Amino acid sequence: MESVKKIAILGYGIVGSGVAELFYTNRKQIEKKAGTALDLKYILDIRDFSDSPYKEKFTKSIDDIVNDDEVVAVAECMGGVEPAFTFIMKCLEKGKSVATSNKELVAFKGDILLKTAKNNNCNFFFEASVGGAIPIIRPLHKCLAANRITQITGILNGTTNYILTKMETSGLTFEDALKEAQQLGYAERDPSADILGDDACRKICILSSLVFGKQVYPQYVYTKGIREITLEDISEAKEKGYKIKLIANVKEINEKITVSVSPTLVSTENMLSQVSDVFNAVMIYGNGMDKVMFYGRGAGKLPTASAVLGDIIGSISSDGTVISQYWESSENSDFIESFDLNNYTTLKLKSGKELIILN
Amino acid sequence: MESVKKIAILGYGIVGSGVAELFYTNRKQIEKKAGTALDLKYILDIRDFSDSPYKEKFTKSIDDIVNDDEVVAVAECMGGVEPAFTFIMKCLEKGKSVATSNKELVAFKGDILLKTAKNNNCNFFFEASVGGAIPIIRPLHKCLAANRITQITGILNGTTNYILTKMETSGLTFEDALKEAQQLGYAERDPSADILGDDACRKICILSSLVFGKQVYPQYVYTKGIREITLEDISEAKEKGYKIKLIANVKEINEKITVSVSPTLVSTENMLSQVSDVFNAVMIYGNGMDKVMFYGRGAGKLPTASAVLGDIIGSISSDGTVISQYWESSENSDFIESFDLNNYTTLKLKSGKELIILN
Repeated sequence: MESVKKIAILGYGIVGSGVAELFYTNRKQIEKKAGTALDLKYILDIRDFSDSPYKEKFTKSIDDIVNDDEVVAVAECMGGVEPAFTFIMKCLEKGKSVATSNKELVAFKGDILLKTAKNNNCNFFFEASVGGAIPIIRPLHKCLAANRITQITGILNGTTNYILTKMETSGLTFEDALKEAQQLGYAERDPSADILGDDACRKICILSSLVFGKQVYPQYVYTKGIREITLEDISEAKEKGYKIKLIANVKEINEKITVSVSPTLVSTENMLSQVSDVFNAVMIYGNGMDKVMFYGRGAGKLPTASAVLGDIIGSISSDGTVISQYWESSENSDFIESFDLNNYTTLKLKSGKELIILN
Repeated sequence: MESVKKIAILGYGIVGSGVAELFYTNRKQIEKKAGTALDLKYILDIRDFSDSPYKEKFTKSIDDIVNDDEVVAVAECMGGVEPAFTFIMKCLEKGKSVATSNKELVAFKGDILLKTAKNNNCNFFFEASVGGAIPIIRPLHKCLAANRITQITGILNGTTNYILTKMETSGLTFEDALKEAQQLGYAERDPSADILGDDACRKICILSSLVFGKQVYPQYVYTKGIREITLEDISEAKEKGYKIKLIANVKEINEKITVSVSPTLVSTENMLSQVSDVFNAVMIYGNGMDKVMFYGRGAGKLPTASAVLGDIIGSISSDGTVISQYWESSENSDFIESFDLNNYTTLKLKSGKELIILN
């Protein structure tokens, strides 16, 4: 009889429960793509889920998973740096591949985790950490591998894009649009990581690290959120042919890279201006393909779970470490050019805000 | 000393010469991603290129390439079914992986080529055959592997999209827009494969075969081009909130699939309506990720070359056949539901044309 390989989920929140649900919904197809019979053996969570249909799979001890040789791949959906980092390190050191949706962790500790995976001949994958369901990590390092990537520009935070869309289309103030986003579950009770730009910052760090081969830490990134954007700014932008979007950007300048997150005037001619509500999109520029854009749901239970499970399938069907998805630690920031508005075309609004223009 | 692996190009037209150019422009990075030193050893073409900087690489005999054990991967950029098919079969039978931009070949002979690659433990890749530079094949079978794909809808032909865009934005007639496209090199002297829908048909065949696992031949596809679309149709559509686009579509109906190419009313709310000029885009619907869209240049020298070289890198850096990118021959068409307008929401224009609506 063919042996059944086992997977585990760390964290049974929105994404983790989505991974379990989607796995059982699409199990046959997932097994076919992975080339092996598969089952979910453990779910790690400190909370009790005695009503869950999966109740017998729950454990509170990471060691149950780490020490079980049947477990070949682990989906980390806990969020935050600790204890996720410690738990993942234990899994990788045992040669178990890990797929994560945790952008904070990858932005701060990606280099260490990638190195540990490499040393243990397994994979640390993170497709779900940027752009939710949107395939972006694998296309960047695989499909576009023959290009020199010169710039990446994206709408990477769904909450702020929802707020800006509502301000533009329904005339809601920032505060009211935020309240609506919270009621719909698009924004958290403490929305600061979204509206101050920190979430988008972590995601552009991950894309920058992947493309340029060195860890780009959040502190290297000029980060400005949308809190100060007013209805007047938005209508002035509209008159002039722009929409205001929170744009995360990395580009080459003077053989270095410069990375930023800021409210930006996006020309209505640019496809990114058409990305509304909670959708995300990433435009990638390269010297062969010109530009390509990826668009889809940047968050949500099943969309994010679909990306995590795609990585689980990829890790099980590949032998050894995928070396092209890798970056080194950065001892210093001498490959980063400081952010300087003079390197961009800008427009000063009546409110005095000087915003970058994206044509 | 590390051995240098060799590649060959079949056909030195627009795409083939782009592959050579982009390879030497980005060689260092390509070698890094492939994990080995690489060089271009042969270019096969029946014409003489004695002025070319690569003149010593030209050969008129496929056997030079087939019998050279140094050659590990071959880029086929000849177009047409023969002699490309015979040449590729010879390469695959010797265990040399092949990357192609040739949609006609894949749409008619994909099953045989994939089987031959599998039997010889090498790869037959075709990212460049659909959507030019846009990563679509690998994301479909890798990144979105955890989804049940329910529908794929795309603008897959740049020539017709250019013509429709010019009719809409500049008020050119079909004939004048076609003439302009020909002058710009976007349409061929004989433009029938584009404007009758055959080119888009071949591409949706490839995507359908990949997703549903059986060869979908062009004769199974309801195919209607844009020749009859008038300026009046376009302006009536605009009044009603639509743009007319040539849409290739495959969707599940009654546990079968139905495949079509036809002029379609795309709601201006739909991202596909924003895809203008020669750009292509593909929207993919699945039960996990909801929908994602890929957008970019669907043709052109370097964009297409970038996809071919991405596949060359992929074939060199992978051990053995990528089994998930595979489909079977189809003995009959009993998995295809005949096209029936009653399965779609439609609108009858004043001219009497009944077009499908895409919201």
